[in-house]
Amino acid sequence: MHIRVPSFREIAKQFKVIFLDSYGVLKNHKGLIDGVSDTIQFLREEGIELRVLTNDASRSQQQQSEVFDRLGLKNLKVDEIITSGMLAKQFLSHKIKSGKIAYLGTENSAEYILQSGLEHIAVRDIDLENLDEISAFVFLDDEGFDWNTDIDTTVNFLRRKTVPVIVANSDKYYPVNKNDVSVATGGIAKLCESMLNKKFIHFGKPDTQMFNYAFEHINHDAFKYTKDDILMVGDTLSTDILGGNKFGLKTMLVLTGNTRSDNADLWINSSGIIPDYICNSILA
Amino acid sequence: MHIRVPSFREIAKQFKVIFLDSYGVLKNHKGLIDGVSDTIQFLREEGIELRVLTNDASRSQQQQSEVFDRLGLKNLKVDEIITSGMLAKQFLSHKIKSGKIAYLGTENSAEYILQSGLEHIAVRDIDLENLDEISAFVFLDDEGFDWNTDIDTTVNFLRRKTVPVIVANSDKYYPVNKNDVSVATGGIAKLCESMLNKKFIHFGKPDTQMFNYAFEHINHDAFKYTKDDILMVGDTLSTDILGGNKFGLKTMLVLTGNTRSDNADLWINSSGIIPDYICNSILA
Amino acid sequence: MHIRVPSFREIAKQFKVIFLDSYGVLKNHKGLIDGVSDTIQFLREEGIELRVLTNDASRSQQQQSEVFDRLGLKNLKVDEIITSGMLAKQFLSHKIKSGKIAYLGTENSAEYILQSGLEHIAVRDIDLENLDEISAFVFLDDEGFDWNTDIDTTVNFLRRKTVPVIVANSDKYYPVNKNDVSVATGGIAKLCESMLNKKFIHFGKPDTQMFNYAFEHINHDAFKYTKDDILMVGDTLSTDILGGNKFGLKTMLVLTGNTRSDNADLWINSSGIIPDYICNSILA
Amino acid sequence: MHIRVPSFREIAKQFKVIFLDSYGVLKNHKGLIDGVSDTIQFLREEGIELRVLTNDASRSQQQQSEVFDRLGLKNLKVDEIITSGMLAKQFLSHKIKSGKIAYLGTENSAEYILQSGLEHIAVRDIDLENLDEISAFVFLDDEGFDWNTDIDTTVNFLRRKTVPVIVANSDKYYPVNKNDVSVATGGIAKLCESMLNKKFIHFGKPDTQMFNYAFEHINHDAFKYTKDDILMVGDTLSTDILGGNKFGLKTMLVLTGNTRSDNADLWINSSGIIPDYICNSILA
Repeated sequence: MHIRVPSFREIAKQFKVIFLDSYGVLKNHKGLIDGVSDTIQFLREEGIELRVLTNDASRSQQQQSEVFDRLGLKNLKVDEIITSGMLAKQFLSHKIKSGKIAYLGTENSAEYILQSGLEHIAVRDIDLENLDEISAFVFLDDEGFDWNTDIDTTVNFLRRKTVPVIVANSDKYYPVNKNDVSVATGGIAKLCESMLNKKFIHFGKPDTQMFNYAFEHINHDAFKYTKDDILMVGDTLSTDILGGNKFGLKTMLVLTGNTRSDNADLWINSSGIIPDYICNSILA
Repeated sequence: MHIRVPSFREIAKQFKVIFLDSYGVLKNHKGLIDGVSDTIQFLREEGIELRVLTNDASRSQQQQSEVFDRLGLKNLKVDEIITSGMLAKQFLSHKIKSGKIAYLGTENSAEYILQSGLEHIAVRDIDLENLDEISAFVFLDDEGFDWNTDIDTTVNFLRRKTVPVIVANSDKYYPVNKNDVSVATGGIAKLCESMLNKKFIHFGKPDTQMFNYAFEHINHDAFKYTKDDILMVGDTLSTDILGGNKFGLKTMLVLTGNTRSDNADLWINSSGIIPDYICNSILA
Repeated sequence: MHIRVPSFREIAKQFKVIFLDSYGVLKNHKGLIDGVSDTIQFLREEGIELRVLTNDASRSQQQQSEVFDRLGLKNLKVDEIITSGMLAKQFLSHKIKSGKIAYLGTENSAEYILQSGLEHIAVRDIDLENLDEISAFVFLDDEGFDWNTDIDTTVNFLRRKTVPVIVANSDKYYPVNKNDVSVATGGIAKLCESMLNKKFIHFGKPDTQMFNYAFEHINHDAFKYTKDDILMVGDTLSTDILGGNKFGLKTMLVLTGNTRSDNADLWINSSGIIPDYICNSILA
Repeated sequence: MHIRVPSFREIAKQFKVIFLDSYGVLKNHKGLIDGVSDTIQFLREEGIELRVLTNDASRSQQQQSEVFDRLGLKNLKVDEIITSGMLAKQFLSHKIKSGKIAYLGTENSAEYILQSGLEHIAVRDIDLENLDEISAFVFLDDEGFDWNTDIDTTVNFLRRKTVPVIVANSDKYYPVNKNDVSVATGGIAKLCESMLNKKFIHFGKPDTQMFNYAFEHINHDAFKYTKDDILMVGDTLSTDILGGNKFGLKTMLVLTGNTRSDNADLWINSSGIIPDYICNSILA
C-alpha cells in the first residue's frame, strides 16, 4: 500500500510545505538527531516552507525555540514552531472572558498559556468551599504539583463545579530514555475523565485542529498553499500519521522514534493507519 | 455559567455569522418547525451570514436543498448547506488516487460522494478472493444493503486487506419519530471497529474539521470573519455544542430537538459540555 | 514465564480434572480435529474428569452433544458439556418470575433457554406501544431475525422500558472458515449497549462465573476437587486463558485454533495474559 | 419493576442469608450508621446468616473487624467479613509459586495479602535493570507510595517484563466525606492499563467471583443454602446490585450511601441496573 522510499529529500522536493513532528524526528532522548540541521538547511535552499508541530505544551514557542538552539539547531525560527499549548491558549482567549483559570502544571506553563488578562490559580491553592470565581480548568503539565494530593483536589473541584475543562496536551505519556516513559498530562486527564465520567476538551495531534492551525499559519498573508502541497512527517502512527491523513495531507512515517523498522508493517496492519511513505529518517 | 435567553434574535444580532444544525433546529420528525422560514428571513434582513452544518451524509448538497424546498423552506441556498459527506468526499479526492472504492450504503450515496473519477463497488459485489483493486472503504449510509450478510463481508474484507477506512457520518443513531431511533452509519462502523480492534477515520460534528470547513467556506473570497463573529446553534450537546466550543465559537443550545427543557441543566452538568446560551428555539 | 511443553498428556496426568474449550481445541471449521477421540479416551483411562466449556449458546446441551456425535466424537457425555446458555438459563429461572421474555435469536434457541415456564416473544413480534407484559430481554443468537429491522426494534424497546438484559454469549464474532468470521451475539449486544449507553449482563468466558459453574458441577455430589486439581485448556488468550487464570486454575494454550505458533509469544506479551503452559495440541 | 419497601426487616425474614456491603450500608464518613447494631442483633435472633462483602483491600479481615469494633459494632465476627483482598491473596497462592511479588501500596497491606511464603518488594525498591526475580505485580492500596515517581516505575516495569498483574480492589475512587472522593487503587490501575494497553486481573464487586467466594463460605461445611436463599444489600448500583443480580441473587438498594432517594429511579433507568427492592436503610 505505502511506499518505502530511500530518500526523504527526493520526496520532499515534490511538496511546497513540510510539517515535522519534533520528538522522534528532529530530536530524541540523547539530544538533536545528527544531521538534522543539514536537512533544515536543504529545505531552506529548496524554498520549501516548514513548520514543527509538537504536542509539548510545557514550554512557550520562545522557550521551545531556545531549547532547539541550545541543542544545536540554530536555523529554526520561533514562529515555525506550533505547539498544542497555542491551541489551548487560543481557546481560552476566545471562550473564557472572566473569572480565574485553575490549572494543574508548573507556574511557568501557566504564565505563558494563561497570559490573557485573566488570573490563574494553582490546584494546590484551590479552596473547595469557595469556588465562585473559578471559570475554567486547564491540564497544562505533568510537573509542578503533588500527585498524591492535587489529583484528588482536581477531581473534587470538578465534581462540585461544572466549568470548561481543557487538556493542553492529550499525549498519555512521553519517552524519558531509550526504554522508559513518564505519565504525561493527557494520562492524568484521562484518569480524571474516567473518575468523573466526563469528556474534556483535548488539544494536540491527532486532532485535526492542530493541522488546521498550521495550515492557516502558512496561508496567513495570502492563500498560497493547498493541502496537496503539504507533507506531514512523523514517527508516531496514532498522532502524526492518523492526524495528517485525516486532515487530507500526504504523510511520511520515519523510523527514528517510536516506530522501529522491524515492527512498522505490523503496526500499520494492526492499526489500519497507513502512511503514504515510509523512510528511515529525514537525514538523507 | 450559561445564560438562559428569551430571544434567539436578540443574541443573533450580536454576531455576523450563524451556524445552524439541521435536525432539531430547522426540522424534526414532523417536518419543518413552524416559523423557521421567518427566522431565516430575519437573518437575511439583518445581513447575517448563515450555514447549515449537518452530519447527514446520505444526500448530496443539491438533494438536501431539494428536501428543504419540499418541506417549505424556500430561502436556503444550496451552498449554504455543509454536510459531513462533503468532508468524506474531500478526503477521498485528496488521498485516494487509484483503485476502486468499496462502500456500504445506497447506490445514490455512492454516486455523489465518490464522483472523483474513481470506480466504486458495493460491499455485496466484493469477491473476498480478489481484493487487489480495492484501495479504500467508505461507510456511507445505513440503507442500501443487507445487514445480515454485508456487515460480515465488510469485516472480513478489512481483516484481509489494510486500506484507509472512512466513516462519512459518525452519528450512532438518528431519530425516526418522537420516541424512536434507528441505528445509523456511525453505529455500524463502531461495531466493525470493535470487531477489528481498529480506529477508522470519522467525519462529522463534534469533530472540528466540519467547523473548519464551514469557517473556510465563509472566508473563501476574503478573510472577513473571525471565530468571535460566529454563533453555533444546535440541539445536541455532544455534537453541536461540544464541537462548536472546541473550535472556539460561542454556542447556543435550543430545546426543539434532542435536549428538552427539563433535562438541559442535568445533561450539561453530567456531561460538562456547556453552551454559552440556552434558548427555547430559533423562532423568537 | 510460561513453559512450552511437548506433550499435553504428560501435563494432563498431573491433574485430576481437565476443562477444555470446544472450538479450536476439539474441533475447527473443517470438523473434528483428528485424534481428539483418542485423547478423550486417554483421559478416561487415566481416570481424569473432563468438562467442555463453550460460549456457544445457540444449541442446548443435548444438541451440542448430538453435533459432537455426528462429527465422530462418540465418547463425550451430555452432562460433560457446559455452555454459556446454561448460565443465562439459570439466571432467568432465579431472577425472572413473571411476564414474557423477549429475545433476539432463533426459535430453537429460545425454546431451550427459556423453558422455565415463562412465555417468550421474538423481537419481530414486539408491539412497541404495548410493552407491559415483557419482563426481561435476552440476546440469544445472531441468527433467526432480520438485522435491518430487529436491531432497531431492540434498541427502541430498551429505550422505552427498563428491564434486565441478558447476553447469553458475549463473543463478538466466531470463525466460519480458515480466514473469515461472522458477527456473533455479543457483537450485536455491544452495538446496542453503545447506542443505549448501558451495560447488559453478559455470560460466558472469560467471566469467572462459567468456570465456577463447571467447578460446582464436578463437586456436586461431594467436595472432591480443589482449584489446584484442574487444568484449563484453550486456544484463545482473551477468553479461555484470561478466565482460567483469574479463577485461579493452571492454564494451557494450544495452537490448533485462534492462536498460531508464530504469534503466540507476541500476543502473550502484548496482552499480558500468560498461560502456564503452551502445547501444540491436545493430541500427543 | 422494583418494589419500594418500608422495612428491611420484613424482607430480610424471607431469606436465610443476607450479604451486606460495608460503606454506605453499615457505616459512612461519620462512622457507624446509628442503629446498625440493632439490625445485626435482629438478624442473629432470627437465625439469619450474614456476610459483609467489601472491596476494601487495604486491611486484613482481622483489621477490618477491629475497625468495626472501635466504631461500636461489637457483634460482627471476623470470619463474617469478606474482602476483595482475600480474593487477591487466594489467586496469588494458587498461581504464583516462586519469585518476588512487586506491589504498590502500604507495607501493611503487603504483609497481609502476600503472606504466602513469597517475598515482596515495594515499587520504590524495584531496580529496572534487574527484574529477573519478580514474578507478579499487585495493586494493593492507593497509599504508601509517592505517586509522582512510583506510577512511572510501575508502568516501566510492566513495559519491560510480562508478569501476571493483580488489582486487589477495582474501585476507581472512595468517599472521604459528604462531598468528596479520593482516587483509589482501581483508578491508578486503570491509568496504567490505559498507558500499557493491557487488561489486568481485577478483583472485587461487581465481579461475581466475590459473590461466589461468599457463597462457598456459607456452604463450607455442608451445602445448606441455594442462591434463592440469599439477599444482597448495597448502596451502589454498579457494584453491589449489578454483581448480585448477575450472580443470580435477589438484591436490595438502600439509600444511606452513594444513591440518594431523589435520584434512585433516574439512575436505575439510565443504567439499566435494577434492584429487586429499594429501602431507605437497613435500620427498620
